[in-house]
Amino acid sequence: MRPPTIRDVADRAGVSKSLVSLVLRGSEQVRPEKREAVLRAVTELGYRPNAAARSLSEQRTRTVGVLLNDLRNPWFVDMLEGLNSLLHDNGLHMLLADARLNRRTGQDPAGPFLDLRVDGLVVVGTLPDPAALGAVAERLPVVVAGAREPALPGVAVVANDDERGARLVTEHLIGLGHRRIAHIAGYGAVGELRRRSFEATMRAHGLADGAVVESSDMTEEGGYRTTVRLLSRPDRPTAVFAVNDIAAIGALSAAEESGLRVPRDLSVVGYDNTSIARLRHVWLTTVDNASHEVGRRAARCLLDRFEGATGAGELHLAAPTLEIRGSTAPPLTG
Amino acid sequence: MRPPTIRDVADRAGVSKSLVSLVLRGSEQVRPEKREAVLRAVTELGYRPNAAARSLSEQRTRTVGVLLNDLRNPWFVDMLEGLNSLLHDNGLHMLLADARLNRRTGQDPAGPFLDLRVDGLVVVGTLPDPAALGAVAERLPVVVAGAREPALPGVAVVANDDERGARLVTEHLIGLGHRRIAHIAGYGAVGELRRRSFEATMRAHGLADGAVVESSDMTEEGGYRTTVRLLSRPDRPTAVFAVNDIAAIGALSAAEESGLRVPRDLSVVGYDNTSIARLRHVWLTTVDNASHEVGRRAARCLLDRFEGATGAGELHLAAPTLEIRGSTAPPLTG
Repeated sequence: MRPPTIRDVADRAGVSKSLVSLVLRGSEQVRPEKREAVLRAVTELGYRPNAAARSLSEQRTRTVGVLLNDLRNPWFVDMLEGLNSLLHDNGLHMLLADARLNRRTGQDPAGPFLDLRVDGLVVVGTLPDPAALGAVAERLPVVVAGAREPALPGVAVVANDDERGARLVTEHLIGLGHRRIAHIAGYGAVGELRRRSFEATMRAHGLADGAVVESSDMTEEGGYRTTVRLLSRPDRPTAVFAVNDIAAIGALSAAEESGLRVPRDLSVVGYDNTSIARLRHVWLTTVDNASHEVGRRAARCLLDRFEGATGAGELHLAAPTLEIRGSTAPPLTG
Repeated sequence: MRPPTIRDVADRAGVSKSLVSLVLRGSEQVRPEKREAVLRAVTELGYRPNAAARSLSEQRTRTVGVLLNDLRNPWFVDMLEGLNSLLHDNGLHMLLADARLNRRTGQDPAGPFLDLRVDGLVVVGTLPDPAALGAVAERLPVVVAGAREPALPGVAVVANDDERGARLVTEHLIGLGHRRIAHIAGYGAVGELRRRSFEATMRAHGLADGAVVESSDMTEEGGYRTTVRLLSRPDRPTAVFAVNDIAAIGALSAAEESGLRVPRDLSVVGYDNTSIARLRHVWLTTVDNASHEVGRRAARCLLDRFEGATGAGELHLAAPTLEIRGSTAPPLTG
């Protein structure tokens, strides 16, 4: 019951193994009748070309490793779909690992992928120790998706345009009439880009004095605590823009506990358009970060590298869009 | 400083390697004095059966594949932590794949794992085509975690006790004074166990007439639509027990849209204790399905199989507990 090998195909077709290889590579140097015999044997035996690719070239496994920063925040789901669609079209498999879990047990997060000799690695999200990937990037093609770090030589970065996304949110709130707007900020390069863009947009509208920034750890609990602080200020903001959806969910809870109704008394906006933001019970205004597109472009970068492109460590940005839902409205007058 | 091998144990005990294997498998066919000699040698040498298995068979990749049924529903996160903790303690890596993504592109969901020659496979959740794993189970150890299917010869199943969980929910609602209780049912073996237990518990309390069952597809949208139907009944229920948290979230939205306040006008309960149920903004009463424990036991089953245990296709059940939060209360009188 073992799967058929290239040797079985060669035997059935009455040719040599190397001729089977030539046919499977699409070589023009094979006579038509031999080619037909090989392809017939492949079909009859149910021989899988992926297995062939492996035996032809001992280095390729036709598998791409995807390292996720944290499985608990479901923002990466659409990105995986984008990645998978293009990788699959190119005969590649995708396997995942959770960097947070590996880190908790002291494992090298990319270790299992290296051991299994994956062909390339996609890093999704900001890792706590991005520099650790430097050694990996010397051994195989690495693409970062949905984050800006690590900035390593030769590593392509594909992300959504965080500055543009933050500007869309801020202009939406200003357009509704809000003048005192708080930003629950995050960390890392992504957090900084969103915060700076919020501040720049407020300044551009002459509202620098109405801009409040409080930092957070980008978790639900962090968003909750930060909002409790914000709402206890004498000049409390009428709108809160959180660095991500999970922190915005925390802000919704804080508003509820303070007896404020969203969006009547307080507007709340997130970032990422996660499945949680789309729940009818939450229905959060947020930024769609073009995850599917980011995933597809990351796959494209990796495929280019497989085909020999020497990566210059380029940056690709996808355009985010604003998803206006039920958590934003004009402020109460007075 | 190499770790001791099965050969070292055999030499010290003065027996053959195959006799050591028999003892380690717990065989009854070994004479007591031989068994003692082997176990003494194991202890004195600090021999680890796992390390042995590795050095005996060069085919081992020290990697376990984990096939998830759907990454969009985050109920599996705690289970992965449980799995990972025990696998890591035994020097094994864990790689993941999303069966839903693979299926959408027509891939054999376990294919990439087989190609990379993982040592074993853990299937998490109910797959749409569980029978497809039959061929895999003939080639390597397979354990099902958090589901009851596929029921395949030699495949261990580790799950929470769904009947007990559903009984805890139903008794909680009856204890609060509810007499008309609806169940939003699911599909598959898990859905059936929860539904039957709900009905049995209602009957046992003389409330068979107050039990309403409506089926759903176990999604948020399904929970929403089912609850809209339930709330439009003339004898509308005062409590809804949904087959999982995601469907319960849909029920919360339907109640909100009908102008009913939860828990004052309607109690809602889920199942799984997902991260969504724990969000302060949701704060859903639910069943904690002991995911971490299920993950650990699934890892244990797999390790036993690596050590040569011939799996009898046994069923392991972990005890679920009720998490009472903010979505349940006594019904309004009158």
